[in-house]
Amino acid sequence: MRTFRVTVAYEGTAFHGWQRQPELRTAQGEFETALSDVFGETVTTVAAGRTDAGVHARGQVASFRLDTRLPARAIVPMLRRRLPSDLEALEAAETDPGFDARRSARARRYAYRLLDREDVLFRRVAWHPRRPLDADALERAVRALEGEHDFSAFEASGSSPTRPVCRMARAGWRRWEGGLQLDLVADHFLYHMVRNVVGTALAVMHAADPAAAMRAVLQSRRRSKAGATAPPQALCLEEVFYP
Amino acid sequence: MRTFRVTVAYEGTAFHGWQRQPELRTAQGEFETALSDVFGETVTTVAAGRTDAGVHARGQVASFRLDTRLPARAIVPMLRRRLPSDLEALEAAETDPGFDARRSARARRYAYRLLDREDVLFRRVAWHPRRPLDADALERAVRALEGEHDFSAFEASGSSPTRPVCRMARAGWRRWEGGLQLDLVADHFLYHMVRNVVGTALAVMHAADPAAAMRAVLQSRRRSKAGATAPPQALCLEEVFYP
Repeated sequence: MRTFRVTVAYEGTAFHGWQRQPELRTAQGEFETALSDVFGETVTTVAAGRTDAGVHARGQVASFRLDTRLPARAIVPMLRRRLPSDLEALEAAETDPGFDARRSARARRYAYRLLDREDVLFRRVAWHPRRPLDADALERAVRALEGEHDFSAFEASGSSPTRPVCRMARAGWRRWEGGLQLDLVADHFLYHMVRNVVGTALAVMHAADPAAAMRAVLQSRRRSKAGATAPPQALCLEEVFYP
Repeated sequence: MRTFRVTVAYEGTAFHGWQRQPELRTAQGEFETALSDVFGETVTTVAAGRTDAGVHARGQVASFRLDTRLPARAIVPMLRRRLPSDLEALEAAETDPGFDARRSARARRYAYRLLDREDVLFRRVAWHPRRPLDADALERAVRALEGEHDFSAFEASGSSPTRPVCRMARAGWRRWEGGLQLDLVADHFLYHMVRNVVGTALAVMHAADPAAAMRAVLQSRRRSKAGATAPPQALCLEEVFYP
């Protein structure tokens, strides 16, 4: 048995998320169909991040094990001929037998793109919150999240995370073409966490001390203290880090 | 009779261009249907630029004349409720009786977005030419187009422009999120002109003197000397200038 890892990118607009679901078009479903066609047998993959419906990926990583003689360098060209236009294989390599795209990942980077104003050109990959963006206040708010914290306040309502403590290595905004982009790098993320961080950052943007307001939400560990969940189409899994 | 101008933006992906055509979904068709619904009568518009299928607009301007008592400020809110998600009305105003969105325009700005590498996130609004981009060479090439010239070499094959001489006020590249963006500002544009300029700039990029190579194409006035037509989805009508 050999172990492979493939980096894939997709525009999430027309997918019901990454994870394979019966009857629904998902990125994993399309990817595994193409892989199975390449190898002539059913291939099942494990991925670094389970993106929700509408969420994009530029650097999703999937792994699988297979008894095959196909050289790794042949995988991407063969996949390209079989994948739909909104799903792309970027690179493929053979890797250590113990490699698992999800469990071996040390950190993920997600980006969330805000627009300064309505922009039809970027409506599938970004979101305009219909209020002026205060870049300084937003920066102070999210900086308060760096470090190791219990992020339960930012977990989707109703679910109880098994590992609520995340190590947030980096949280900050930068300018992008359409406005402001949030980059979050953490060892792992809770369900809806990035979108809830964005909603909360916008909610505390006009507080006298946005950092203190964000810390108060974090420390409450209560979803009811956090802001609304920002929409999915502005979220993108940018990269996954391995040792 | 009163005269109105409305600025509209659209993602061209799902439109067969701006211009109304029977049986096909076009931006003008959708826009006039919504306008006619707002005013309770058939409204016919004139637009500054006829964008091709797949081409976007962030600042298309359309004008129309109508005998109505509706205040101009009511138009955008009423349109918003009637327009599809890929077509947006940005602003509306009453204007001089002689105003015509096409004939009154003094200049248009088109942008063409190139990607440094394949990027599924921007695949609907930009193009990766599958070769490394030499920003300096590309800049020198298009700078040679500034000024008043006969642009027949960049007109779509087979058509003969009635006004081949354009005043190119500005031609230059700038960095954008995904790579390089070409901005062209001219009094008017020939059919496929921006896309042919992009294809030619890429073709002369590795010439010893890209500016001289571009000038030679321009002066030949022959389409056969110019490069391939770059694809439509990376082109956007950004703004229209009026006196």
